[in-house]
Amino acid sequence: MKNHQVQIKLAVDMMSGDNGAQEFLPAVVSALNVHDNLSVLAIGKSEELLPLLEKESLFKSGRITLIPATEVVEMDDAPQSALRNKKDSSMRVAIDCVKDGRADAAMSAGNTGALLATAKFVLKTLPGIMRPAICTSIPSLRERGFVHLLDLGANVDVTPEHLYQFAKMGALLSSAVSGDPEPKVSLMNIGTEAMKGNELVRGTVPLMENSGLNYIGFTEPDGIFFDDVDVIVSDGFTGNIALKTLEGTIKMIVSQLSSSFKRNLFTKCAAVVSLPVINDLKVKLDPRKHNGASLLGLRGIVVKSHGNADRVSFQNAIEISVKLVEQKIIEKMRKQFETAEIKQSEE
Amino acid sequence: MKNHQVQIKLAVDMMSGDNGAQEFLPAVVSALNVHDNLSVLAIGKSEELLPLLEKESLFKSGRITLIPATEVVEMDDAPQSALRNKKDSSMRVAIDCVKDGRADAAMSAGNTGALLATAKFVLKTLPGIMRPAICTSIPSLRERGFVHLLDLGANVDVTPEHLYQFAKMGALLSSAVSGDPEPKVSLMNIGTEAMKGNELVRGTVPLMENSGLNYIGFTEPDGIFFDDVDVIVSDGFTGNIALKTLEGTIKMIVSQLSSSFKRNLFTKCAAVVSLPVINDLKVKLDPRKHNGASLLGLRGIVVKSHGNADRVSFQNAIEISVKLVEQKIIEKMRKQFETAEIKQSEE
Repeated sequence: MKNHQVQIKLAVDMMSGDNGAQEFLPAVVSALNVHDNLSVLAIGKSEELLPLLEKESLFKSGRITLIPATEVVEMDDAPQSALRNKKDSSMRVAIDCVKDGRADAAMSAGNTGALLATAKFVLKTLPGIMRPAICTSIPSLRERGFVHLLDLGANVDVTPEHLYQFAKMGALLSSAVSGDPEPKVSLMNIGTEAMKGNELVRGTVPLMENSGLNYIGFTEPDGIFFDDVDVIVSDGFTGNIALKTLEGTIKMIVSQLSSSFKRNLFTKCAAVVSLPVINDLKVKLDPRKHNGASLLGLRGIVVKSHGNADRVSFQNAIEISVKLVEQKIIEKMRKQFETAEIKQSEE
Repeated sequence: MKNHQVQIKLAVDMMSGDNGAQEFLPAVVSALNVHDNLSVLAIGKSEELLPLLEKESLFKSGRITLIPATEVVEMDDAPQSALRNKKDSSMRVAIDCVKDGRADAAMSAGNTGALLATAKFVLKTLPGIMRPAICTSIPSLRERGFVHLLDLGANVDVTPEHLYQFAKMGALLSSAVSGDPEPKVSLMNIGTEAMKGNELVRGTVPLMENSGLNYIGFTEPDGIFFDDVDVIVSDGFTGNIALKTLEGTIKMIVSQLSSSFKRNLFTKCAAVVSLPVINDLKVKLDPRKHNGASLLGLRGIVVKSHGNADRVSFQNAIEISVKLVEQKIIEKMRKQFETAEIKQSEE
């Protein structure tokens, strides 16, 4: 058990996503065992949660509190419909808890579009921020071991000013996680020469060069795992394309490897011998270790878990929420963008 | 040796790319040995090519002809500068050979931007086609074993009408390669629901639905390797992002696997035992088998090889050129778009 001073309260949507409370509760319990300054508001249908919670000593001791919510946002609910019609959903109530100060951060494995729409509506964006963005870390072969990508799908049609703000927000998040005060920031592009890219990327370069960020130029997607960069910025369409291509490619190789190993008796033996190596690869590439995308730019912390998160990945998303609270990311972001506004008005 | 009736002449830029004639000549020789109806115009600096060619019996027998070109387009030459200032480059002369009928197709491993600009300028686009596009096949786990992607970078800022034309061109190419008269065509998108995607993708859907193509909806990039689709259409920025993410992910996994296998004596032994499996994977994923991108929409066949192509991959690009000539892709494309024009004017 680590000893912290700040008390942290997390509002956890226990109902949304593919797996629900059966997977989330063990993650919550593990996280509470790691962080003794943490307490959790478990949000969802009482009739489903209570039987599970009653078996937990942490519920009895008060570190898990049940907050009832009668509805659940489904994965295929349209964002605006979820927002308008499910005002007592576990997702909405989790975000409400952040809004009214009952919690320091909200977490959900639900429908990204609905979560974003609800978080924007309830919490509002921070002063000076035009649009929130979704940011996550993915593994990198560099020493630091990870790189942050944003936007991953919150904003599909954007302007250079939006990308510029995403860069600033991503840099703050990266700093909060790594402690590096000057993370290296790049724009995702299809070449490294100045003339390369679409209008959006080329239009963003002058803003980046005058941003005060540690802007290092373009990252081509084949450099995501290799380049010495901490934050890679793109529009949400491009970022989501890159992320899904990456996931699909890993899935394809894993499937190929396992079918190759199953081909005949010899390869089956090879599989047994290679198990430690394959496991090593699996551990290194384990997407669960990188589960937890932050919705940046809001007046409160909201972390999105993968819809099919299991307990391991859900706990990782909890860890991210805790880190963002500890690092006072909202205050830092508010300060950064307020300063930017003041600077702009002075110019 | 296969017996064909049609005589095919290929104009090969022997100078451009990272490896040059040392790698390209063996590829040309292999291809000539496979196709006895093929002959090659080897284009480049006489002083460099002649010493190599003089050792080849195929040069003496006249199936390889030297066409001198005094300049070479470098990988970092700006497209417009290459076009204006290097009029006697091996790349330009290769395309000129197609223009004036000396060759049925041109091949180059040079700078994509310069190749595209030169090919557009010299050959012009086919009637009715707004912009040429770059298309290549990549491996897929489906039975067919591959899927075509376009555009891969020729056009970074496009309209729905452009994507619609890319879809038509991609379908023709896919048919030419697979023989399937109704290849399945999709739009690359970040979701499969109708509301998903950016303005460009959503704006293209109505055109696709009325295209007469076998349009099957959206493909998310994590489905590139798995989905039952033959042609995936996107703007050139998005397509290039997906392609490079895919390449980077494969490179990362290969690097991880090999470092894991080198970790200790046990894993080194595992590596030896697993060699057939790893080799199997390498063969299946070998990008060299998919080398050769077609510049579609021009009044002549131009195939682009990877800049760092070795003899195996260069020969694959030659095979693609041969197939496109045999399949009369230009005539088919001309007919398709002429018909479309007539239909449009009738409406």
